[in-house]
Amino acid sequence: MFKVIFKPSNIEIKVQKDENLLSVAREAHIAIDAPCNGNMSCGKCKVRILKGKVDTKKSVHISKEEEKKGYVLACATKVIEDIIVEIPDTSSLYKNDMKIEDFSGLKGKMAFDRAKKSLVNNGLKLNLYVKKAYIELDIPTLDDNIADTDRLTRQIRQMLGFQKVEISLNLISKLPLLLRESNFRITIAYMIKSNDTISLMNIEKGNTTDKLYTVAVDIGTTSVATCLINLLTGDVIAEASSANAQIQYGADVINRIIYATKKDGLKALNKAIIDDTLNPLLNKMYKSANISKDDVYFISVAGNTTMIHLLLKIYPDYLRQEPYIPVFSNMPIMQASSLNLCINELGGVYTFPSVASYVGGDITAGVLSAGIWNSQENILFIDLGTNGEIVFGNKEFMMTCACSAGPAFEGGGISCGMRASKGAIERVKIDKYEPKINIIDSNKPVGICGSGIIDLIAEMMFAGIIDRRGKIVQDIETNRVRFDEHGIGEYVLAFKDEYGIENDICINEIDIDNFIRAKGAIYSGIYTLIESVGFDLSCIDKVYIAGGIGNSLNIENSIAIGMLPDLAKDKFKYIGNSSLSGSCLGVISKSARDKVEEIANQMTYVELSVYPSYMDEFVSACFLPHTNIDRFPNIKLLLS
Amino acid sequence: MFKVIFKPSNIEIKVQKDENLLSVAREAHIAIDAPCNGNMSCGKCKVRILKGKVDTKKSVHISKEEEKKGYVLACATKVIEDIIVEIPDTSSLYKNDMKIEDFSGLKGKMAFDRAKKSLVNNGLKLNLYVKKAYIELDIPTLDDNIADTDRLTRQIRQMLGFQKVEISLNLISKLPLLLRESNFRITIAYMIKSNDTISLMNIEKGNTTDKLYTVAVDIGTTSVATCLINLLTGDVIAEASSANAQIQYGADVINRIIYATKKDGLKALNKAIIDDTLNPLLNKMYKSANISKDDVYFISVAGNTTMIHLLLKIYPDYLRQEPYIPVFSNMPIMQASSLNLCINELGGVYTFPSVASYVGGDITAGVLSAGIWNSQENILFIDLGTNGEIVFGNKEFMMTCACSAGPAFEGGGISCGMRASKGAIERVKIDKYEPKINIIDSNKPVGICGSGIIDLIAEMMFAGIIDRRGKIVQDIETNRVRFDEHGIGEYVLAFKDEYGIENDICINEIDIDNFIRAKGAIYSGIYTLIESVGFDLSCIDKVYIAGGIGNSLNIENSIAIGMLPDLAKDKFKYIGNSSLSGSCLGVISKSARDKVEEIANQMTYVELSVYPSYMDEFVSACFLPHTNIDRFPNIKLLLS
Repeated sequence: MFKVIFKPSNIEIKVQKDENLLSVAREAHIAIDAPCNGNMSCGKCKVRILKGKVDTKKSVHISKEEEKKGYVLACATKVIEDIIVEIPDTSSLYKNDMKIEDFSGLKGKMAFDRAKKSLVNNGLKLNLYVKKAYIELDIPTLDDNIADTDRLTRQIRQMLGFQKVEISLNLISKLPLLLRESNFRITIAYMIKSNDTISLMNIEKGNTTDKLYTVAVDIGTTSVATCLINLLTGDVIAEASSANAQIQYGADVINRIIYATKKDGLKALNKAIIDDTLNPLLNKMYKSANISKDDVYFISVAGNTTMIHLLLKIYPDYLRQEPYIPVFSNMPIMQASSLNLCINELGGVYTFPSVASYVGGDITAGVLSAGIWNSQENILFIDLGTNGEIVFGNKEFMMTCACSAGPAFEGGGISCGMRASKGAIERVKIDKYEPKINIIDSNKPVGICGSGIIDLIAEMMFAGIIDRRGKIVQDIETNRVRFDEHGIGEYVLAFKDEYGIENDICINEIDIDNFIRAKGAIYSGIYTLIESVGFDLSCIDKVYIAGGIGNSLNIENSIAIGMLPDLAKDKFKYIGNSSLSGSCLGVISKSARDKVEEIANQMTYVELSVYPSYMDEFVSACFLPHTNIDRFPNIKLLLS
Repeated sequence: MFKVIFKPSNIEIKVQKDENLLSVAREAHIAIDAPCNGNMSCGKCKVRILKGKVDTKKSVHISKEEEKKGYVLACATKVIEDIIVEIPDTSSLYKNDMKIEDFSGLKGKMAFDRAKKSLVNNGLKLNLYVKKAYIELDIPTLDDNIADTDRLTRQIRQMLGFQKVEISLNLISKLPLLLRESNFRITIAYMIKSNDTISLMNIEKGNTTDKLYTVAVDIGTTSVATCLINLLTGDVIAEASSANAQIQYGADVINRIIYATKKDGLKALNKAIIDDTLNPLLNKMYKSANISKDDVYFISVAGNTTMIHLLLKIYPDYLRQEPYIPVFSNMPIMQASSLNLCINELGGVYTFPSVASYVGGDITAGVLSAGIWNSQENILFIDLGTNGEIVFGNKEFMMTCACSAGPAFEGGGISCGMRASKGAIERVKIDKYEPKINIIDSNKPVGICGSGIIDLIAEMMFAGIIDRRGKIVQDIETNRVRFDEHGIGEYVLAFKDEYGIENDICINEIDIDNFIRAKGAIYSGIYTLIESVGFDLSCIDKVYIAGGIGNSLNIENSIAIGMLPDLAKDKFKYIGNSSLSGSCLGVISKSARDKVEEIANQMTYVELSVYPSYMDEFVSACFLPHTNIDRFPNIKLLLS
């Protein structure tokens, strides 16, 4: 057994010889960014060996200079003696607080406001899952000596008119002492099951009808956003968000699914989302709003199909294997205690229904709140998160597909790519080969995030630094362009001396190629989906862009690189975190929950991987902006 | 800390100075009989100190001879140094196997046969809680890629016609691997919730439709009987019974309730019935029938109100305190896992509804199976267990009451009394002052059980050994009658030299007085109950006697001492363990379960303690056979 000490946390762990350093870090609950889940392709799990020797493979992601300093890829390294390992800032997910407000697109309050607007605009009804009532019971006597539960039921019948009252064993066991300690004056929290039946969720001493709360949650592959709503005032009284702690097990759903198939992997992923992400967020909100978890009776969760499988600890591997079968699409409302979620243990947990393995509850929630199902106009809805999902339709029909864009928009597969956190270059302008950059919350750039890459590629194209295949043009008069011994070109966005950083921040032809394939997946997805119902792009009345990437996204540049179709700019609308808005609707409206079930059933899923013309479309779209420039008449004008 | 070693089990426990020896024994899970729950009144917790000194109080229950040998009452003894304690046979509940067949009155098979007869005779319907179906699902393809649960639901709709299928999270989490390992050929176990809805109880690989079992249970204060039924053949395939392990915490419900109010008392009582009584019985049956607990989907439990409160771990103290309020009278079917009962974890647990604090589900189950609710004739139903409960009525009305007869019928409050186990004198004849006795399973008597005491008192009365007040007659020419220094008389039923036992087995005037009050409680209860509806004893068409005491009960002698009314002998019928028969009905018939709810609602409870004339009736009944001998014309003849 050898000892591994991680700096700066000083966490120690004993390991066997030849154990993989990335696995060791996970075992020690050290979060290391590893979007590719340890296959050496992303180069994100760079760590520095401060003391001791390791057995490590060479990687293109480690420069000679870095190698000298002791940097290795954790995933390519075996432990062969006692070592001390430093987790650098760029690799540590939790070191930098994520810039959540910008990243998740919308604060909870905005999401809830949009939900309320959607409720009214689309004729949905406000109807809460749980209600409360204050009840004074008759004191038992020898002449009126019916059982406690019968006495309670009798009073409920008289006061509220419900004939049947369901009471769980847990509540019954609280009842005898509670009734006597409160002198038979109590408050019940209840759920209406049918016209004549209610189910009790809680029984409390005295009058507590002034306390009734609910939580809406959006679980993204990358980040999780929550908001706490006071149901009596209709206000958001707290909100919180953080990275999804599952990130340490892989950046995208595919790598997480693979991890879930390993021994105890599913358990670890479930723990990461519940114990390490959701419950801390919930408790943070309860503390800030000064309320008790027992007064929270409902939680609504929107998330993609994989996220919801992992939340419910359901084996997800068949989502990934052809023919891509989810275990479930639609769950009934579950009891919080069965998931270990930190709300009232009898509270309800609602998860949005999914359409298919790669079109999940985040999308149905988004479609619900965006009102596409109630629209006369043809709406194109694009959710740009870790992957890209697309919906096209109106009140008559809705088509949907998932694009395998991968994590490129979050920096995955890009050598200097990173998420939209502190130090990320989020905007780029290039004037005469010289870049101007906007950095998130810092003067020193660390890497470049999705919106920055879109700007960068568009600007490089317009500046003539790259051609329409994304290749760096030779013989440009600038020191920012250079080629390595294999002839692979790169463009330096930030020299290390300019900013006093350790390495130049560059984008190379491999990065550009990766990104072009990601944007090509989105565009060809849009095109194929619309074509599949016999429409063309000109039929689109509105484009709603939702999701994590959205906020700092430059629409013109997105069109310019051929990610979005070349439509009039006023057709595009950024609608923020529509998944969270939908989730908010879920907590205030049973009719919204009923509606989204209908929506999920109505949506027709198109499996792009087997759609006949998709592959050709995708190949044509892997060009700037497109092989057929006539699809982008405005960009054609700009480029000519 | 001192060390206490219990013999013969050699169980050791460390204790603080001055700890009570009965409490220490309970802590060590040594079962010591203590019907009075440690207030020195019953004298049952006699143990022998083999080594070391103790601080003990003198007791009338310990003779000088016993004192010399080291006998003490455990409840009256404090530990003050290391000791070795012997638990004698007479004090150990588990040493002697209880003679269950005789004691519980009916074997499981007989109870189930009566249940089947009752089903047919009373027009109840056979309808099982759980059914099974073998299902072959379509294998998923890209063209048919709906979720696993949706696929299952679709097939169930097609095959069985139910539109809605409820599946628990636990089952869903089993589903993906199970479907693929079974090549999509499975068996579902399901419960019909409504015309269009079923709830799945289990999903198994392949065809397991040949395995479907259920269990019926009767939880008595003293003993517990169970039977395992194969639902496909309608046979009892195993049965088991044992003492209720709660006995160590008190022989009657009052003492158990008091124990339940102590710290961790409720938990201990709940553990005693579930972990130490029911689950061992269940596992014993499963082993003998060679089946798996997972194939058992339903368990029906009949028991008195206190037993069911303790089974469900519900605080029972208000049952005991005026105005005697149960926490619940009627529980919905619960999930086995919530009670930790050893059947399929999603299986249903049904408990029979109670009428009042002292008329419980054992009585409603008995009334159900005895068919009183469907009878034209007036039936008097007497359940003689640890207490006595009485029902009088027919298909039009049913009145019920509980008599505080105490544990006398099981030997409680009688100096040489014991339960109907090995060594108990169960029958007595007296000829010229000399007794002839029947001993259960032995040549050496240990004590006398309820049926023996009834015989003994009747025979002593007819022989002129006691007068009609129960006092020993002076100056009888026999060495079997003797008086102590206080003038209290006793009759020696068995001299120690006759049988080679350690002590004479006697009944004294205090014992007789205790027993007369117990039988007086039964008789006055019967009389008052019938009077309360304006009837008299002549209106009784039939008397059904049920319960633990019943089997060796001599009806003539029971009438002679004035416990039962003086009716023609052919009106009496012993119906065995009617509670277990009712419990059997509960597992095979939903209409029986619905009916017994009606029965519980229809039964009118008469609280004897506040009934105006009851106290006078009781006092008049504390006489042999009764103060008013004209109520017993046949006995009057015999005595004249």
